[in-house]
Amino acid sequence: MKVLLLSGPNLNLLGEREPEIYGTATLDDYVATAQATADDLGLELEHHHSNHEGDLVDAIGGARGVYDGIVVNPGALTHYAWSLHDAVAAFGGPVVELHLSNPAARERFRQRSVIAPVAAGTIAGFGALGYRLAVEAVVAVVERQR
Amino acid sequence: MKVLLLSGPNLNLLGEREPEIYGTATLDDYVATAQATADDLGLELEHHHSNHEGDLVDAIGGARGVYDGIVVNPGALTHYAWSLHDAVAAFGGPVVELHLSNPAARERFRQRSVIAPVAAGTIAGFGALGYRLAVEAVVAVVERQR
Amino acid sequence: MKVLLLSGPNLNLLGEREPEIYGTATLDDYVATAQATADDLGLELEHHHSNHEGDLVDAIGGARGVYDGIVVNPGALTHYAWSLHDAVAAFGGPVVELHLSNPAARERFRQRSVIAPVAAGTIAGFGALGYRLAVEAVVAVVERQR
Amino acid sequence: MKVLLLSGPNLNLLGEREPEIYGTATLDDYVATAQATADDLGLELEHHHSNHEGDLVDAIGGARGVYDGIVVNPGALTHYAWSLHDAVAAFGGPVVELHLSNPAARERFRQRSVIAPVAAGTIAGFGALGYRLAVEAVVAVVERQR
Amino acid sequence: MKVLLLSGPNLNLLGEREPEIYGTATLDDYVATAQATADDLGLELEHHHSNHEGDLVDAIGGARGVYDGIVVNPGALTHYAWSLHDAVAAFGGPVVELHLSNPAARERFRQRSVIAPVAAGTIAGFGALGYRLAVEAVVAVVERQR
Amino acid sequence: MKVLLLSGPNLNLLGEREPEIYGTATLDDYVATAQATADDLGLELEHHHSNHEGDLVDAIGGARGVYDGIVVNPGALTHYAWSLHDAVAAFGGPVVELHLSNPAARERFRQRSVIAPVAAGTIAGFGALGYRLAVEAVVAVVERQR
Amino acid sequence: MKVLLLSGPNLNLLGEREPEIYGTATLDDYVATAQATADDLGLELEHHHSNHEGDLVDAIGGARGVYDGIVVNPGALTHYAWSLHDAVAAFGGPVVELHLSNPAARERFRQRSVIAPVAAGTIAGFGALGYRLAVEAVVAVVERQR
Amino acid sequence: MKVLLLSGPNLNLLGEREPEIYGTATLDDYVATAQATADDLGLELEHHHSNHEGDLVDAIGGARGVYDGIVVNPGALTHYAWSLHDAVAAFGGPVVELHLSNPAARERFRQRSVIAPVAAGTIAGFGALGYRLAVEAVVAVVERQR
Amino acid sequence: MKVLLLSGPNLNLLGEREPEIYGTATLDDYVATAQATADDLGLELEHHHSNHEGDLVDAIGGARGVYDGIVVNPGALTHYAWSLHDAVAAFGGPVVELHLSNPAARERFRQRSVIAPVAAGTIAGFGALGYRLAVEAVVAVVERQR
Amino acid sequence: MKVLLLSGPNLNLLGEREPEIYGTATLDDYVATAQATADDLGLELEHHHSNHEGDLVDAIGGARGVYDGIVVNPGALTHYAWSLHDAVAAFGGPVVELHLSNPAARERFRQRSVIAPVAAGTIAGFGALGYRLAVEAVVAVVERQR
Amino acid sequence: MKVLLLSGPNLNLLGEREPEIYGTATLDDYVATAQATADDLGLELEHHHSNHEGDLVDAIGGARGVYDGIVVNPGALTHYAWSLHDAVAAFGGPVVELHLSNPAARERFRQRSVIAPVAAGTIAGFGALGYRLAVEAVVAVVERQR
Amino acid sequence: MKVLLLSGPNLNLLGEREPEIYGTATLDDYVATAQATADDLGLELEHHHSNHEGDLVDAIGGARGVYDGIVVNPGALTHYAWSLHDAVAAFGGPVVELHLSNPAARERFRQRSVIAPVAAGTIAGFGALGYRLAVEAVVAVVERQR
Repeated sequence: MKVLLLSGPNLNLLGEREPEIYGTATLDDYVATAQATADDLGLELEHHHSNHEGDLVDAIGGARGVYDGIVVNPGALTHYAWSLHDAVAAFGGPVVELHLSNPAARERFRQRSVIAPVAAGTIAGFGALGYRLAVEAVVAVVERQR
Repeated sequence: MKVLLLSGPNLNLLGEREPEIYGTATLDDYVATAQATADDLGLELEHHHSNHEGDLVDAIGGARGVYDGIVVNPGALTHYAWSLHDAVAAFGGPVVELHLSNPAARERFRQRSVIAPVAAGTIAGFGALGYRLAVEAVVAVVERQR
Repeated sequence: MKVLLLSGPNLNLLGEREPEIYGTATLDDYVATAQATADDLGLELEHHHSNHEGDLVDAIGGARGVYDGIVVNPGALTHYAWSLHDAVAAFGGPVVELHLSNPAARERFRQRSVIAPVAAGTIAGFGALGYRLAVEAVVAVVERQR
Repeated sequence: MKVLLLSGPNLNLLGEREPEIYGTATLDDYVATAQATADDLGLELEHHHSNHEGDLVDAIGGARGVYDGIVVNPGALTHYAWSLHDAVAAFGGPVVELHLSNPAARERFRQRSVIAPVAAGTIAGFGALGYRLAVEAVVAVVERQR
Repeated sequence: MKVLLLSGPNLNLLGEREPEIYGTATLDDYVATAQATADDLGLELEHHHSNHEGDLVDAIGGARGVYDGIVVNPGALTHYAWSLHDAVAAFGGPVVELHLSNPAARERFRQRSVIAPVAAGTIAGFGALGYRLAVEAVVAVVERQR
Repeated sequence: MKVLLLSGPNLNLLGEREPEIYGTATLDDYVATAQATADDLGLELEHHHSNHEGDLVDAIGGARGVYDGIVVNPGALTHYAWSLHDAVAAFGGPVVELHLSNPAARERFRQRSVIAPVAAGTIAGFGALGYRLAVEAVVAVVERQR
Repeated sequence: MKVLLLSGPNLNLLGEREPEIYGTATLDDYVATAQATADDLGLELEHHHSNHEGDLVDAIGGARGVYDGIVVNPGALTHYAWSLHDAVAAFGGPVVELHLSNPAARERFRQRSVIAPVAAGTIAGFGALGYRLAVEAVVAVVERQR
Repeated sequence: MKVLLLSGPNLNLLGEREPEIYGTATLDDYVATAQATADDLGLELEHHHSNHEGDLVDAIGGARGVYDGIVVNPGALTHYAWSLHDAVAAFGGPVVELHLSNPAARERFRQRSVIAPVAAGTIAGFGALGYRLAVEAVVAVVERQR
Repeated sequence: MKVLLLSGPNLNLLGEREPEIYGTATLDDYVATAQATADDLGLELEHHHSNHEGDLVDAIGGARGVYDGIVVNPGALTHYAWSLHDAVAAFGGPVVELHLSNPAARERFRQRSVIAPVAAGTIAGFGALGYRLAVEAVVAVVERQR
Repeated sequence: MKVLLLSGPNLNLLGEREPEIYGTATLDDYVATAQATADDLGLELEHHHSNHEGDLVDAIGGARGVYDGIVVNPGALTHYAWSLHDAVAAFGGPVVELHLSNPAARERFRQRSVIAPVAAGTIAGFGALGYRLAVEAVVAVVERQR
Repeated sequence: MKVLLLSGPNLNLLGEREPEIYGTATLDDYVATAQATADDLGLELEHHHSNHEGDLVDAIGGARGVYDGIVVNPGALTHYAWSLHDAVAAFGGPVVELHLSNPAARERFRQRSVIAPVAAGTIAGFGALGYRLAVEAVVAVVERQR
Repeated sequence: MKVLLLSGPNLNLLGEREPEIYGTATLDDYVATAQATADDLGLELEHHHSNHEGDLVDAIGGARGVYDGIVVNPGALTHYAWSLHDAVAAFGGPVVELHLSNPAARERFRQRSVIAPVAAGTIAGFGALGYRLAVEAVVAVVERQR
């Protein structure tokens, strides 16, 4: 089984940006958590980061028939990127929406997700642990759908 | 470590109610998943179900100093029960909000959670697996806060 | 055929509460009208009143497989009790929503019903007669669905 | 006692139009149900159908002093025809609003009735039975007001 | 194949009314364009204009089984005439919504179409050419559905 | 100079309908006031009443080049009849919007006029006197524009 | 009979300010029109202008028992000055709201009047003529109320 | 004179819950303040706390004819519990709404009270003192109404 | 201790204005109640009334360092006067918002207070008694903050 | 004459993505339809697809003085991409907005187009035929503007 | 060249009021910065402060023909004072809107400016430096318009 | 000191695009103004333009620790680009938001800035001069924060 892990805008700044919200771990640390989970579960995981909505749309479009599932932390694109929404809807397999922090407890604009209506499910608020949970979740949904 | 698992209105009907949305597993099945996870992680878990908002508020109020964390699937109370919101906010430890299905993909009224702003995080859309993930998550947050 | 008649918050005050809106008949009078209709139609009718949303949810959950249809006057719960909405949606047979007065002609908050979208139909504004009409209606829908 | 039954836009298509919502009975069938009820109750009933809001306003305006009560199924005019609202408000006797299907369970625009605030009451969702119930209801309200 | 062309309120004033928006061509000119297109494509076309919503509802109701498709320029009824919406939804074949100007570039109230959700498609902003395009379009959709 | 006086839905019921709002004078009385004013000012006045929006649109469309100005009391059409709005906008000369009562002091839906943005001006709240003022006003605006 | 004419903020700039909207006449010109009307009708008229909401509130408060009626052009205070609204509501006699231009045809914020709900009526859009009409109107309402 | 003091959801946690908002006094402390005031004024006071909306509705329904007035701190029920609203409206004597903190200075959802429109008045923001003021107030209103 | 009592627009009309809402007592009567309370509590109280928002802002700005607390009945300024809001926020000591009637039970525009979010607390609905309660309250808050 | 055809996000997935909405034809098929139309009309057509809003903005910016007109199917960018709106507004020649399906009949977010207010016109709902119609339309508008 | 600097409500409290937002400089300090800039640029500058909206309207009305441009910091009037909006619109020369802090980063009500739509431009967030920039800006716009 | 100047979508078209709004100067002209200001103040300035939101996010992310401050004219991204918002929030130093024209005086969608809440301040409406003012401003804020 192959899983694609996608990271959206500004996640490359993790560890530097607003540590009171996001903590001091870096994106590499989070990807390592996901990778370790993938190793534990015996599946392939690839990671791609971009600050460009179009890149993420390209990646999801290209993932059809290549990856079994996707975990995506869309960053602020969560809240307005309908093209990303359409890409997720068009992907055949399950897509898990992942957030480090709990958007519901933050600014008003973070309280609408345009991705959630087409995601298999959402995991939010658990920091690094979320990466482990999301990989477990996407694998389970892939297996349930077989 | 002790964890309280709370189930809100109509969850007792799981397995009968709208199986195209919620599947055929019963509440007992889901609790068993949670219990198995608790056993794996070596912690105590107790479950309480009620169709009464007041009972859930009583339970959370009584959990202070007794339980380390709470996992709550508030059912439809998720969307309007501000007393439950206040009870969650007043509980000292982490509270994980759990949903079997993905509310963002359903009716409009299910797209606002009054619990999320005071929850540690949310797990939604993964069915029985969500019970495992939520127990793992609440334990992790309790440990992170120590 | 068995029909359950449910009365929500404050209906026990009928005859005393705001008689310029609700008239001077008591809840017993209305139940008697419903009972008489049931007798005429040769069906069993039971009545349950509660000021607790949870009680009504319990009652509807317990009515599955026991009653063929339900007539419910949810009182003010009509306007916000999404748990009651879910209970109605989960009940297998038809549920008729009943109001003594015409909510559309009253305060703004009474103009949204969270029950109506999952009810078989609605009867509002006809006082005691509404109890007769609602029993007739629920029987007819049960028979139509057979 | 004389009762006027009014049918609004597109009701002449009943039996053809969207039978999954409205069933296969025709407008004549529904009028026959109303007529039979009127015969049972010993009252005169006349029926008028028009796709023109103005015709319905004319009819209600002309019904003053001629009919004791009105049953109206305003079709889609229910949702925006304030002139019809004013005509109903100006009619001396009771006006019962009738719908074959349950508008609350359909599209959003069908969830506001501009007629309901000035109607004696509403009956919705019971198909042909609704015509019987509505005639019974309007008679009862006329008699109550005497 | 037979196509019905319908023109709504105030279109009879074309050529006189606000020529800076609608140009100097008259309704007859536009109908002639549609007729020429119909002749080119070898189909029958009839045109009906009315300032009355009820007339247009009558016409669409009567078009069932007589015409294969409809092109309708509803004028300002576009924005509030839910009875027309229902008539379009009840017509069996495709209905193309046509506007001379581009409503999206005009007043706010012109930015909602109650017809569009039940139309096969929309052509807006191309003046007389729109009549040619709309006739081509309705024919193509009829043929596609066969 | 020729002036057209138009009366919309339900104004034919004046004197009977809700006299606590509209008084006991009839439509004929109000037209007589307007006619007397017209006589005083030496101009021709014609009156047309209809409960049909389409009739009023026809009348305004036909008034181009025949009448110098229009006084219109659109009744409840004031609040939603965008076709009437377009007809008023397309009429070359001034159109004065007239109301017997003061809509701003009544129900919420009466607080939006779709006619006012294209009217020369509005006179509301002065009963019969309003007919005199409106005729004076439309004459003055016609003369100012010459 | 004594009538008070009140002019609100920026009306002292008439003739200079945005003449394409307000024309070239000055406030003195408009007051002269009102005065001439008062002379014709044999009544006393006094005029007061202020850019201060508080002054207008003082003036209306002081007018109780001194003036029989008030004509007020509140300028932009029309749209937000609830203290002025309360002052108008507390004045015993009729208050006529007057506008030179037609606010409904201008910016969105000018489309709500907080004065209108407590005014006897409104005259808008007729320039200098409006001053004549408003004085006629306030006199008529005073006489009607006697 | 007899006064009923009612405390809603989560008030039993006072002294523990969010002391930066609610202070360190317990519910018993606040009740003692109210009791002392009652003693000073020579009236009977009883206190009832519940986390259940239905219990509070029961209590108010049962207070008719037993208590002269009610002081209620509805906790978060303030913001959505329309059944409580109806119970308050149905109680014959005055009901004073009481809050320890100032809801207007807190989260948005706390800025609407569904109780206030049917309360005699509101006292908010004064902590323990509020209990004294509220008892004084309810007594005064009872006496004023005699 | 020194307390400033401020009265906003139209309160000088008390006793005359809408006595069915505000009663027949005059502003002097209410001030006397406040003064008596001040005397009872051994503190200095000064009263200032103005219909001008700017005067009230001046007064609050000048009260810094002179008065220990303020009681303000802002009249209709309550609902829109953000400058008054800023003045209250800038005053060092507590400000108690006071209303004679219960704004929540009146028109919609009275249901938003722009003062409440920066007030120490609110007392509404108790007529003259409110002046006593408010003075007691402001003293208590001053003392609590020492 | 030269025309630029632009395809936005996810259109490269056509034929695979949600065929129940978009059909089984691929983007190449649609471009071939447009090309055939261009050949018929004797004009040059170039096609560019990108999932990046910035690319489309670059392309439109670079099209000034090179292409006479543009046909754009912006995909989901239709609904939020104000930069694309500005690029369209800045292009000298006509831009035709094209959609395969009818957005008005789909999700709510697809019912606002930020492109439409600056487009020459819109063609929606006609699948492959739309590409023919749109090329015809853009040519006609270019010629009309010469 | 002559420039008028206007300061609105509560700016006289600068240095005392909420120093964490506005800093410790006084209004005199800010005016001195503006004056120094004026001296540098060789122009006359006068300053006027008032807590009264009416005074600012008077000042702007009186500035016509006397001052070439205006810099105004309207304080909280920014958010609701439409009379000030009209005064700014009526002033012939440029008006620069100035804020010490950045309203967009503060409370919601500060996020709408009723002045900005009629201002030449806005400078916000730069404290004392803003006074220098605003004077430079107003001079530049005056010169550009010559 | 080093300052980064960023230009968003369509600014490369300046001088061509809608010169009645933006004038005839090109982006190079504006950058030259900024450069001249930088030279005057003895600081380094680099400029980067892109039509891609992702490029601007990349640039701001890469500016951490390299530039002391940023001036950004985000073009239409101002109104919806929450990723840019997050990038600005994550940058350590001050970011000044700059607009050539005054968005508040233009279309409704330009009246919300998602950048402003995290910018140090805003300068809008002053054309080329704005570039000078913005560079001065960002330098001053950097110096103030040292």
